[in-house]
Amino acid sequence: MELWFTEDQTPEMRISCRVKEVLYRGKSTYQEILVLDTFQFGRMLVLDDIIQTTERDEFVYHEMIVHPALVAHPKPERVLVVGGGDGGTVREVLKHTSVQEVVLAEIDEKVVEVARRFLPTISSGLDDPRVKVDIGDGIKHVKGVRGAYDVIIVDSTDPIGPAVGLFSEDFYRSVREALRPEGLLVAQTESPFFNSTLVQQVQRTVAGLFPVTTLHLASVPTYPGGLWSFTIGSKVVDPRNPGQERLEMAAGLETRYYSPEVQHQAFVLPPFVAELVQGGDAG
Amino acid sequence: MELWFTEDQTPEMRISCRVKEVLYRGKSTYQEILVLDTFQFGRMLVLDDIIQTTERDEFVYHEMIVHPALVAHPKPERVLVVGGGDGGTVREVLKHTSVQEVVLAEIDEKVVEVARRFLPTISSGLDDPRVKVDIGDGIKHVKGVRGAYDVIIVDSTDPIGPAVGLFSEDFYRSVREALRPEGLLVAQTESPFFNSTLVQQVQRTVAGLFPVTTLHLASVPTYPGGLWSFTIGSKVVDPRNPGQERLEMAAGLETRYYSPEVQHQAFVLPPFVAELVQGGDAG
Repeated sequence: MELWFTEDQTPEMRISCRVKEVLYRGKSTYQEILVLDTFQFGRMLVLDDIIQTTERDEFVYHEMIVHPALVAHPKPERVLVVGGGDGGTVREVLKHTSVQEVVLAEIDEKVVEVARRFLPTISSGLDDPRVKVDIGDGIKHVKGVRGAYDVIIVDSTDPIGPAVGLFSEDFYRSVREALRPEGLLVAQTESPFFNSTLVQQVQRTVAGLFPVTTLHLASVPTYPGGLWSFTIGSKVVDPRNPGQERLEMAAGLETRYYSPEVQHQAFVLPPFVAELVQGGDAG
Repeated sequence: MELWFTEDQTPEMRISCRVKEVLYRGKSTYQEILVLDTFQFGRMLVLDDIIQTTERDEFVYHEMIVHPALVAHPKPERVLVVGGGDGGTVREVLKHTSVQEVVLAEIDEKVVEVARRFLPTISSGLDDPRVKVDIGDGIKHVKGVRGAYDVIIVDSTDPIGPAVGLFSEDFYRSVREALRPEGLLVAQTESPFFNSTLVQQVQRTVAGLFPVTTLHLASVPTYPGGLWSFTIGSKVVDPRNPGQERLEMAAGLETRYYSPEVQHQAFVLPPFVAELVQGGDAG
């Protein structure tokens, strides 16, 4: 007898994974939470029927939402992660020895609980003394804060349900105010194949607020199309050219997808993606 | 009523696409052939239940199996495509004005027929006067040929069924003999996530036969894991550094994924892929 989990990646396309065991199934105030043990990807966290992260491929997403921005910053000390309750992003941030404090602003306490219990390799950083878990709305957390963070990472779910506000101009403006003078915002911005309109909108919005705006890509097998995008808005530094000193530091990071060479590579966009950034028509 | 096509990408993982219409279904001497019109990817060619190419994402695979090798060669004039009966690879080869002849050695006449009839945007190059379609076994075609081609492109199906021999050392040795002194071999070599053993084996075999061996990557949404690899074996030139003159030529190619910048980017490997190339353990 075979058990399969299926995600509708789009209304016209599905991914299915064979399941060894259902480890957890529950409902929080915000969403349905499912933890599966799958044959292909190991343990998998699913929120409202959407695969969030898996043991086998999480390294790509978590390394690539963190390191390009943190390596670009000359000396990141205070970092805010909005969303990211599984802890994978926090784990990567903690690899930077300059970091003194990481605040995790996650709206759903249950996600953090479940990750601590079932995804120990992903949530491992959450007990580090430098980490402060702040359960609550990331939008409210950021609002009114002035010049407090070096990097703010928006590790959100898809732009439906609780995460909609995390893709708005208002929120990005608050983020800008909450950043220090050399600060950077980095946000996951979905698939350039299937969400080209969103990629383009976020790029335009961030470019209206930050002097330096970039897009970088990484290959995540369990996300629609297998190619994922991240948008950076930066007040000063250009993440495409972090400088020799920072790249030498980056060479010491223990990573499986990111490397100092990938710091450059990820920002080289195939023409059909570059068009989105340059404000051409969404495909 | 909804119609869905499902491919078992691995025994533990499936992709499904909603189907507008079944355009063709038949059986050749070698395989089952299916052409579907899908909502997500437009028309789709399926051989023995495996998605080969789709109108929406074929540009990635076809551009990336062709241009890195053809741009690396100082002046490609005679090119052999083994497999690739849909014609997409031939179409990209023909974008190089130095090319005088392209031989397509496809074992399955029916695939070529079906592509001509149902996939006109992909097969469009097959009627070009520079193209010679040679129906027959690519292995036999290459055997005994000496110094005839500048580039040989192995555009095969997966290494099961009729394509097994196209991943063997014997075949790569014949390819080397069939190449001119500055020649290059390029072959599709599956997913670095799910076929790491194969990637590693081909890399080792090709490295034993050619002075320069490289791996490059491209993001193809309909292939398992969304990330695909290509192996190049080269007698002289290094495709990672084709030189300024060739890159200037490359800037004039009409492409949507490939660009002169992507010529460098595609060869920058995330550490977990670089390990495969350096002969570490397959993941």
